[in-house]
Order: sequence, then C-alpha cells, then structure tokens
Amino acid sequence: MKLLEDMIREKGIVKEGNVLKVDSFLNHRMDIKLFNEMGKEFKRLFADKNINKILTIEASGIGIACIAAQYFDVPVVFAKKAQSINIDGDVYSTSITSFTHKREYQVIVSKKYLSGEDHILIIDDFLANGCALEGLIKLVHDAGATVEGIGIAVEKGFQNGGKIIRDMGMNLHSLAIVESMDASTGEIVFREDA
Amino acid sequence: MKLLEDMIREKGIVKEGNVLKVDSFLNHRMDIKLFNEMGKEFKRLFADKNINKILTIEASGIGIACIAAQYFDVPVVFAKKAQSINIDGDVYSTSITSFTHKREYQVIVSKKYLSGEDHILIIDDFLANGCALEGLIKLVHDAGATVEGIGIAVEKGFQNGGKIIRDMGMNLHSLAIVESMDASTGEIVFREDA
Repeated sequence: MKLLEDMIREKGIVKEGNVLKVDSFLNHRMDIKLFNEMGKEFKRLFADKNINKILTIEASGIGIACIAAQYFDVPVVFAKKAQSINIDGDVYSTSITSFTHKREYQVIVSKKYLSGEDHILIIDDFLANGCALEGLIKLVHDAGATVEGIGIAVEKGFQNGGKIIRDMGMNLHSLAIVESMDASTGEIVFREDA
Repeated sequence: MKLLEDMIREKGIVKEGNVLKVDSFLNHRMDIKLFNEMGKEFKRLFADKNINKILTIEASGIGIACIAAQYFDVPVVFAKKAQSINIDGDVYSTSITSFTHKREYQVIVSKKYLSGEDHILIIDDFLANGCALEGLIKLVHDAGATVEGIGIAVEKGFQNGGKIIRDMGMNLHSLAIVESMDASTGEIVFREDA
C-alpha cells in the first residue's frame, strides 16, 4: 500500500537491533486518516470473505482494528494480556513471547466472544517473528472458529513470521512489507508485491 | 446518553465489589456502531472547543478514542503502561493506581506527541476513583498543554472520581453515570443529568 510505505519512508525511524519505530503515526500517536485508508484496503483485500468479527490484541492493534471494522460492519474483540479480575474464568488462553518487550505473557479471550460459528479477520499492527499471530490463531482454533484472513499493517519481511504464517496456509496480507532496512543510512526497502 | 444507558441496562452485569462488567460491548468485545454514536455525542458536547488531539490510555480507551477522533478530525495519542524499549527516553511519566488490577503502574507519553501548543480532549472508557484521569491530566499539564475537555463512556457516580475531577474545574462529560447498582438484583440506576 503506497500511502503506508510513503509514511514509513517519511516518518519511520530505523534503529539498531532491527527496530523500526513508527510511533509517530501507527502505534503511539495514531493517524486516524491513515487508519481509514488502511481499513478500506483491508476491506478490498478481504472483500470475498464472509467475516463476522475482527480479532486483535492490545494495545496497538486496537485502533487499526476498530477503524477497519467500520468497513466490515462487524464488532472487534481484543485479546487481553494477563489476567484481569474483570474477566470471567471462562477464557481461551495462550502464551506469547514478545520481541519488543523480551518477555513471555499470557493472552486471553473470553469464551463468550469467540465461538465455533465465528469467521474471524485477525488484524494487528506488526508482524515480525509471528509469535503474537500464532497465539491469536491458536485462540481462534481453540474456539473452533475459522480464520478467514489476517491483515497486518507492517511486516518485517526479513524476519520469519510471515513465512511461518503463510506456510500454515493462512490468507495473510501485509499492507507494507519491509524487505530490508539499514540503521546507519535509514534506508528502507519494501517488498514489491505488498 | 440513552443508547449507552439502554445498552448497560440490557447487557451490563453487576457483580459484588462494585464491579460493573460491560465487556460484551465496551471493553473486550467492542460494539463499533455504539462507539460511533458515542463519538458523535462527544463531538456535540465539545463542539465549541478547539481540540487538536485526543489523549487516551491503553487498552480499552483506544477504540473509543479512535472512533471519536473521526468526528474531530484529529489524531489520537495513547498513554502507555510501563516502559517499552521502543519508546525513546524522552517521555512524560506518571504513576497510576489501578482499581481493576489492584496495583500501581507507570504511564508514559513520548514528549514528541504532547506539546505546549496542544489542546487536548481526554477520552476513556471508565471513571471510578479518577486515578487514571488524574494521571492523564498531569501528563497534559507537564507538557504545558491545555485540557479542553474530558469525555468518559461510563462513570461510577457513587465513587469519588467524578467529583474530584469536576472540583479541579475540568470540563468533564460522562455519557452514562451510574448512580447506584445492586449486585443481588442487577438493578442499575443512572443519574438524570448525564
């Protein structure tokens, strides 16, 4: 998606350690106009799918998922990190290792909000090693629901998450795939087919 | 706001310990149509204010804030809980005690995304003892920015947060104020002027 690639080139910051900072428009300050264009693009990409619910994970997936949900006319469920006393005991649960925070955490979705009848579009802001996505897919499958598609804003194509998820047979679309990036020059190269 | 009150009456669950569960439409499964009506109502309530940015806090404020932002045509910044390695060192920071999770945590906003020129609308899903809101107000004031208004979905009027924030002179509007609730009967009484 050219608009997103342009934004990443213009405002993204490449840091040592394979860190791409896009917090000025994607995951700290959120550019809602951009999110609307991304939502339209997700709708175009998954137009032929019968989707009745969007699943995302807190925190930075929520904004993108909520704006996109307007184009699908469906509710959003977000997976929560760690147990809250406000969640009933009956939850689907899995463990995810965070690349960003270098730790493992539990992710839960109430069984009330995922069922065998659900046709799910998973949306998240980033795909790197794929751990978060694998966790979300597991939650959907544990519920007996169907993953109709996965929409990602930014995929780090030089990490293996995209390959792992596509090799599972998942219908994965990333709006921008970073093929390579250079912290010394700030140069970012995108995969052509994204 | 009648639509929200009706939804709380119909789908909210009152539990012992002053817990009101609205996770079927507000903060786990998110009803995006409802969020749009809430966004329109926030715009009506703060129509005369010159707002250039919405500030919220992860996780459950983000969806409401992003949908509302469309009616104000402004970006959203969300305050993050705890330090992330992807956040630069230059942050405004404060400590918040969570009623829900019964613990204290740090909340941060990058100094890049709050400045003295900002006219902020703070949006969050819940107001109970007001700790989270006091923290967000402190972050805005630390940046030298102006709080133009505060929009809350559900206020627990029987807790003291609303009084504390209004006594600070803040322009606070809650779309539904629960005056009292009874865990044994499930009855919920709303304040008339909300």
